[in-house]
Amino acid sequence: MRKVIIGLSGGMDSTTLLAILLSLKYEVHCCSFIYGSKHGKWELKAATDVVAYYKEKKQPVFHHIIDLTTSFANFDSALLLTGGPIPEGHYETESMKQTVVPGRNLIFGAIMAGLAESIDAKEIALGVHSGDHAIYPDCRPKFIDSMRDTILLSSGGKVNVIAPFIKNDKSNILYKGYYGCTIKVPYYLTRTCYKDQEFSCGKCGSCVERLEAFQKISIKDPIKYEN
Amino acid sequence: MRKVIIGLSGGMDSTTLLAILLSLKYEVHCCSFIYGSKHGKWELKAATDVVAYYKEKKQPVFHHIIDLTTSFANFDSALLLTGGPIPEGHYETESMKQTVVPGRNLIFGAIMAGLAESIDAKEIALGVHSGDHAIYPDCRPKFIDSMRDTILLSSGGKVNVIAPFIKNDKSNILYKGYYGCTIKVPYYLTRTCYKDQEFSCGKCGSCVERLEAFQKISIKDPIKYEN
Repeated sequence: MRKVIIGLSGGMDSTTLLAILLSLKYEVHCCSFIYGSKHGKWELKAATDVVAYYKEKKQPVFHHIIDLTTSFANFDSALLLTGGPIPEGHYETESMKQTVVPGRNLIFGAIMAGLAESIDAKEIALGVHSGDHAIYPDCRPKFIDSMRDTILLSSGGKVNVIAPFIKNDKSNILYKGYYGCTIKVPYYLTRTCYKDQEFSCGKCGSCVERLEAFQKISIKDPIKYEN
Repeated sequence: MRKVIIGLSGGMDSTTLLAILLSLKYEVHCCSFIYGSKHGKWELKAATDVVAYYKEKKQPVFHHIIDLTTSFANFDSALLLTGGPIPEGHYETESMKQTVVPGRNLIFGAIMAGLAESIDAKEIALGVHSGDHAIYPDCRPKFIDSMRDTILLSSGGKVNVIAPFIKNDKSNILYKGYYGCTIKVPYYLTRTCYKDQEFSCGKCGSCVERLEAFQKISIKDPIKYEN
C-alpha cells in the first residue's frame, strides 16, 4: 500500500485532504503538531476525533502527535499563546498578518519529509490553498515549489511534495470534499477558528473564510458557532 | 548588535563557528536540539559547557534548548537510540550511511529560520563542511543553496542562510579556530563522538575524522579518549 504523510490540523482543508487520499487508497500518516497556538488544544481534539472516525471505519490511517512547544517558545505571532490578541475581520486585511507564524510550514514540512523517508513514504501532502497566499508567504506556490526542490535534495530524491489544493480556494475544497471523493468527510468534527474557546467565534479571519466557503456551495456549516 | 542564529551541537565545528561569529561582534543565539540521538546527552552537556564558558567571559551568547524527541520518534537512523549500532571506521565507507538522520538539517534550519524571523536576526549560520558531503545529502552545497532559497521565500526575504565552512574540511576549521579568530575556542569542552559513553571512542567515523584533523594541523586533541 502506497504511503503518504499529511499535516492534519483538524481543520476542513486537511480533513478533506485526508479523505481524498483515503479515497485514492493511500495509507495515510497524519502529523498533528503542538506548537503553542491559542487554538491548539481544540485543533488537536478535532484532529484526534477525525482520526478516530476513520479508524472506526477501518481506514488505513495513523496519527503522529508531535510536540514542538520548545521549538516555537520564542516565536513571535498573535496566533501563539505568547502573542497578542487574534484580530477579527476578513482574511485579506492588514491586521491578519499578525497571525503569521514564522516558518511554520517549512518546519512542519521538514519533519514530515524526514518521517516520510524513514517509513518509506514517497510523498508528503500539504493542504495549503489559494486563500492563504495573500497573508502567508509559506503557503504561496513559489515557496511550495522551492520546498519541494529542497526536500528532494535533502532526501536524495526519495521524497516529493504535493499540494493538491494550491490553486483552489476553500469553496473548491469543500466542493471536492462533498462531491469529489468516495469517502465521506466528517466536517462536523472539524475546527477552523483561531480563538481559544470551545465554540468557534465566527468572527476571526479563519472563521469568516470558512463560513463564506460553505455559503458559496450552499451547504450549512455543520459545526456550532458561539452566536 | 547584529544577531545570528546557529545550531550548536557542542562539537568542534559549531563551537568554532560560534567563536568566529563572536569575534565578528555578533550577538549569537545558539540552538541545541534534543532529538533522541545516542550521543545526545553528551552533546548537550558539551554545548551547555561551551555556552557557560562564553557567558563567563561576558560574551553576547544565548542558548535555546529545543526538544524534538516526538518529532524524531519514528525516524530511522543508527544515530538514534531507536536504531541499530553505530558503525566504526572511516567516514567515507558505505556503512557510515546508516548514521544519516533523514532531513535533520532541514528540520534544524527551518526552526532556526523561524526563530531568526521572530527575534529579528537576519541570518542563520550552519557549521556544515566538505567532509560531510559524501555521506549526508543535507550537507551538500546544492542542498544548502536550495534551503537558502526556500527560507528566503518562507520569510519574505527576511532571513538568509550562511554556511562559512561549506568548502572547508575539519582541519581547515581547526586552523581557523586556532589562528583565525580573536576569541579562543575551548576545544577541550567539545564533543564529537557518536557513541553513548562518557569518553569518546576514537573509532567511529566522527572520532576518526576529528583525530585526523588535529593530526593534520599538528596539535594534540585536548579531549579524553577511552583508549
